[in-house]
Amino acid sequence: MNKINTISFIGAGNVAWHLAKELKKNNFIIETIFSRTIISAKLLANEVDAEATTNIQNIHPSDLTIISIPDDAIIEIAKTIKLKQGIAVHTSGTQEMDSLKSVSDEFGVFYPLQTFSKNRNVEFDNLPICIEGNNSAVTEALEYVAGRITKNLHRVNSEKRMVLHVAAVFACNFTNFMYSVSSDILKKEQLDFEILKPLIAETAQKVMKLNPTEAQTGPALRNDIKTIVKHREYLSNFPEFEKIYNFVTEKIQSKKHPKT
Amino acid sequence: MNKINTISFIGAGNVAWHLAKELKKNNFIIETIFSRTIISAKLLANEVDAEATTNIQNIHPSDLTIISIPDDAIIEIAKTIKLKQGIAVHTSGTQEMDSLKSVSDEFGVFYPLQTFSKNRNVEFDNLPICIEGNNSAVTEALEYVAGRITKNLHRVNSEKRMVLHVAAVFACNFTNFMYSVSSDILKKEQLDFEILKPLIAETAQKVMKLNPTEAQTGPALRNDIKTIVKHREYLSNFPEFEKIYNFVTEKIQSKKHPKT
Repeated sequence: MNKINTISFIGAGNVAWHLAKELKKNNFIIETIFSRTIISAKLLANEVDAEATTNIQNIHPSDLTIISIPDDAIIEIAKTIKLKQGIAVHTSGTQEMDSLKSVSDEFGVFYPLQTFSKNRNVEFDNLPICIEGNNSAVTEALEYVAGRITKNLHRVNSEKRMVLHVAAVFACNFTNFMYSVSSDILKKEQLDFEILKPLIAETAQKVMKLNPTEAQTGPALRNDIKTIVKHREYLSNFPEFEKIYNFVTEKIQSKKHPKT
Repeated sequence: MNKINTISFIGAGNVAWHLAKELKKNNFIIETIFSRTIISAKLLANEVDAEATTNIQNIHPSDLTIISIPDDAIIEIAKTIKLKQGIAVHTSGTQEMDSLKSVSDEFGVFYPLQTFSKNRNVEFDNLPICIEGNNSAVTEALEYVAGRITKNLHRVNSEKRMVLHVAAVFACNFTNFMYSVSSDILKKEQLDFEILKPLIAETAQKVMKLNPTEAQTGPALRNDIKTIVKHREYLSNFPEFEKIYNFVTEKIQSKKHPKT
């Protein structure tokens, strides 16, 4: 098994930010942080005692190079670099592993299934990390790294990983968007978002135990037309929110009573 | 102030179920549970040492009668009963307080802002309860009752309460619907919903500290077209899910870059 001690990062965004810090905390040596802008490279490099660079040629030949940039950029970067040694991985949910074929002889994927923002700490202990390697030595090396920061690791091929990512978009990004609409509505009425927090917490906690179909409640599910009509009437002041309300209400109803 | 000791319920659904049990636990005497079906009346009555009835005339003249039924049914019930004594409240987010005007001289609203399912216990300690009374004695009496089961109580008029309910539909019902889509996608691919739970928990926990606009992440927000195209391609196998994906993705994008 390739023993990984040293790690470099291409990218200094939200995922790189948290991953680099967590790996450093678990005694990996972070050698280089590459970013297109020196400010963001330096910000993260300072956190993990690494060198910052904007020159792709200056990246250390680390045991592991983690490419943590948007999917479009992965393709571009893959065309321009060829590592002399070590494993190359990306952290994308959707990009195929093979997009790194030309970057190194040893390549794979290291996908943390979580939402990351720089100004919010994340617990890694139970954070799912999906691993894929182009051969079993690579897979094992990546499992060793992931296993140092989480107990929740999974071998997942590129096809299944993309499905997980799609599901995660619904469960996280779309969910958070619904929070943001509720917050916008309250703000317009000078009501405090604070009052919704126990509800938001319980809605999430509920599906830790019940499946989401069992957990569903609300006027759309119980076909409480009187309430729905009043909500629409109110929301007619905010056409964007009204469209979302109508759309999702209709989806909840048609899920309960699918058209045959 | 009217001192409330005895309580009866009209309705034995999810809200009545949890509220009656919590009030009983806090030493209120639950006298009657009325429901249209004797089975559901008895199920709850047995839990709280109350009498079960399907005859509206048999409801005890309690200090407080809590009407916890769908909005349409509130209007119907209000036409048929006139309490000889005590306060009448409903638990609806959207129904005006005045819909109980004919039911008793003392009336109000007791709206717990939470999602309830019978097979899931709920913590009341910090659960927001919105109170409205037709006079200050009623408001104070209701605050006394609410204050025995939560420290998170609010005086909210009917107009503001409806806004809270609309916001709650987005933050809870629509959010849970997004969970259910993610769960359905994973099921179709024989993947375990378990793997999404840390993400769901963190997405909710995140907005306890950050506002939801700050907390937003994902391909729609960063306009990661390559990823979005791949997700759509995959979802074309599931037209219903694809429609939801396209709709919410477009909303997230247009929120970030509003058309002028």
